[in-house]
Amino acid sequence: MAEPEDLQHKEDVQHHLREVQQLLSRHKLVENLVHRQEMPRHELVEDLVHKQHVAELRKKLDSLHPADIAYILEALPLDERLFVWDLVKAERDGEILLEVSDAVRESLIEAMDPQELVAATGQLDTDEIADLAPDLPRDVMADVFRSLSVEEREQLRAAMSYPEDSVGALMDFDMVTVREDVTLEVVLRYLRRFDELPDHTDQLFVVDRDDTLRGVLPLNRLLVTDPDETVFNIMVGDTLALHPDDKAETAAQAFERYDLVSAPVVDADNKLVGRVTVAAVMDFIREKRETELLSQAGLREEEDIFASVWDSVKNRWSWLAINLVTAFVASRVIGAFEGSIEKLVALAALMPIVAGMGGNSGNQTITMIVRAIALGQVAPESARKLFRKEIGVAAVNGLLWGGLLGLVTWWLYRSIPLGLVMTGAMTLNLMLAATVGVAVPMTMYKLGRDPALGSSVMITAVTDSGGFFIFLGLATLFLL
Amino acid sequence: MAEPEDLQHKEDVQHHLREVQQLLSRHKLVENLVHRQEMPRHELVEDLVHKQHVAELRKKLDSLHPADIAYILEALPLDERLFVWDLVKAERDGEILLEVSDAVRESLIEAMDPQELVAATGQLDTDEIADLAPDLPRDVMADVFRSLSVEEREQLRAAMSYPEDSVGALMDFDMVTVREDVTLEVVLRYLRRFDELPDHTDQLFVVDRDDTLRGVLPLNRLLVTDPDETVFNIMVGDTLALHPDDKAETAAQAFERYDLVSAPVVDADNKLVGRVTVAAVMDFIREKRETELLSQAGLREEEDIFASVWDSVKNRWSWLAINLVTAFVASRVIGAFEGSIEKLVALAALMPIVAGMGGNSGNQTITMIVRAIALGQVAPESARKLFRKEIGVAAVNGLLWGGLLGLVTWWLYRSIPLGLVMTGAMTLNLMLAATVGVAVPMTMYKLGRDPALGSSVMITAVTDSGGFFIFLGLATLFLL
Repeated sequence: MAEPEDLQHKEDVQHHLREVQQLLSRHKLVENLVHRQEMPRHELVEDLVHKQHVAELRKKLDSLHPADIAYILEALPLDERLFVWDLVKAERDGEILLEVSDAVRESLIEAMDPQELVAATGQLDTDEIADLAPDLPRDVMADVFRSLSVEEREQLRAAMSYPEDSVGALMDFDMVTVREDVTLEVVLRYLRRFDELPDHTDQLFVVDRDDTLRGVLPLNRLLVTDPDETVFNIMVGDTLALHPDDKAETAAQAFERYDLVSAPVVDADNKLVGRVTVAAVMDFIREKRETELLSQAGLREEEDIFASVWDSVKNRWSWLAINLVTAFVASRVIGAFEGSIEKLVALAALMPIVAGMGGNSGNQTITMIVRAIALGQVAPESARKLFRKEIGVAAVNGLLWGGLLGLVTWWLYRSIPLGLVMTGAMTLNLMLAATVGVAVPMTMYKLGRDPALGSSVMITAVTDSGGFFIFLGLATLFLL
Repeated sequence: MAEPEDLQHKEDVQHHLREVQQLLSRHKLVENLVHRQEMPRHELVEDLVHKQHVAELRKKLDSLHPADIAYILEALPLDERLFVWDLVKAERDGEILLEVSDAVRESLIEAMDPQELVAATGQLDTDEIADLAPDLPRDVMADVFRSLSVEEREQLRAAMSYPEDSVGALMDFDMVTVREDVTLEVVLRYLRRFDELPDHTDQLFVVDRDDTLRGVLPLNRLLVTDPDETVFNIMVGDTLALHPDDKAETAAQAFERYDLVSAPVVDADNKLVGRVTVAAVMDFIREKRETELLSQAGLREEEDIFASVWDSVKNRWSWLAINLVTAFVASRVIGAFEGSIEKLVALAALMPIVAGMGGNSGNQTITMIVRAIALGQVAPESARKLFRKEIGVAAVNGLLWGGLLGLVTWWLYRSIPLGLVMTGAMTLNLMLAATVGVAVPMTMYKLGRDPALGSSVMITAVTDSGGFFIFLGLATLFLL
């Protein structure tokens, strides 16, 4: 849990990073370490200086928030990262493992032995252990399981059973519950028995004897109301409740839309099983956004910036392979018109313009549609309206830019028919791009698949091959 | 403010939308409206039915959360949107205007007269009015100003003076403050004098007589501590405080990293001037993500999905213009080699593969670097390390895919030299892509500009022209 004291120099996480890097590099801590192993009894004074610098670095690390240490670990190359990781107090390992990115987490876990890993989970809640579980070795998880109470095992099993993008995967079990028939005075006295309330407790959950959710008691109401009032009279009965099987995206939208801090999670019988906090939702949103950005460039997973060349090649190859295939198809389309190009070589220079503009225009259309689908503003019935609009936009752009290019072509090659073919091909390819740009995401949406995924490859494939075909085809028909 | 009662069918905003759409379309409300204006006294019974349906729709709208109404307005075409907007209770106008997207907000404001607009701001806080201000007509803002108290005018002026991406633009003025020398009992009694606490009050701000921030009193501590304790003894003195001129991005990172619900904003003299809540931060993150996604496709601003063809063309033209220029340059590079293509027409079919693979590979590199920069994991000093890694990846990919393509080329055209030129050109172009893919974002970063902006156009321009030049150049040198 974040102790506010840790936050003192908050904006300065960059500053912390630089400080740690300086401690590491100025004193050559990591290199010295290797050096020392090779010549163990060499130069005692140097060794003392080294120890002092290590102590200084350890002190610095102890003063930092776990999230800041995670940040620093991510920004360090592997050898320095593991050196720093070794200096971090063992009881903070768990929290830090939770904060680092997947790729970096893997590298840290690889460097730990099973006992360390079991100990690291010792400070964590069951929902947090569930987050780490996929990265932990099987035998470590077995040990962790044995170390838990029956109730905790149940929670861990439940938390691990939900898919990654479900509400169940976001929820924690830190709920404070009260009964509806007591007075606020009793609630206040009950709360004072806690050492501290869980983070993000903005409301207490009102349940009956069977843990059925009856409502919520916002702290804001608790604090402004006369203590003699009963919970029943001031609780909010008809409240938003999530289900573990709901999509995490649904929860995120609800949190954004209704500005929530926490929300109860109930099962099919309306029994309270957990809660979701805005912190978990923000983490989810950040991860989702990063995955989106990466997948747009065909990067399959997060790639540690200091990853080896080989790991990077593996991460990137599938996208390049797909693109190679589509580029090869486009190349074959051109191959089919080699006769025409031989007769009029200007075609070779002009054809990439038609293809490229189609790709750009198609990507604009797709971005608009994918975004509107993500915001839920598009019903399957709107498809016709969208087609009409996008084809209109494409026609205007095609005549505008195609016309301009037609003029330039005429000026360059002194051929009016070639200029007209250029204008015609550009207009037709932009209209093809618009059609595919609406059809691909709408079809994926109707099939219940993520419209953002792969749409961009598909549109480029179509506008490349299509652009070459339209342009070279028109030229062959009208010019040769 | 969100009344929890509104949330009852939360996940069902899609359901609400469909219900409204059905009410609108089944009863042809909008068409009827036009109809009725044309023949005012025609068919009294129909008119009654109409009124009944309008009443039904109005009732439905009254039951919805402002955010849900905003959502529905965004999903409706202009005529239906304005019809629904007319049915919304006037006193909810302000809240809804805050929630809708910029493009839709414009369309709604256009349909309102000045008095309605002034009235709509009447229910809003000053920081919320500041958010609307850029979209309001000048004379409306003058009237709004006149309607405010002196203190509110000061706040509004302050809130409007900060740039859009600063903490000042995110902050609100709903702080509850206490003094450090009183007991918690006094604080509790003070809070009971409120009708309600502001949303997202997870901590009270402890200030002295001059409004200097002394610390914060988390409600969680207030609730678990003996009421006879003084504020001074349990407040958190050394807390995170933002400044109005801080970048909003900094605040967002702090909220994500330290899981905050609210944070105080202080001026240079450490005087409390406002607070930022997690709700404002989430809105900021969402907007930023959308702008990113749009700008990647060269869309300058949010485009309402039902916008006119003309508005869409305006939104998209600048990107297409830039791409036209770069495509034209690439076309001229090919033009310079027309002699070679005439002699060996296979070059025309093969050259787009080299250019396309370079573009894809370069975009992968840029995505990795931009992301690492955004996460703050790249220091200017890391450039050399990154160059080395990316060029290594490019060399491996170039030899791998270039080699494969070389084989295919040999098989297709029965020419070993052509195959070798293919492999060589591919490798060189991928290495060019890697160099530019690192250099462009790193340079923009060093110049203090957003590395995400425009990097993608630049890389495609370089890998297209460069790819054609390398491939056709090698071919001219070695094959002809």
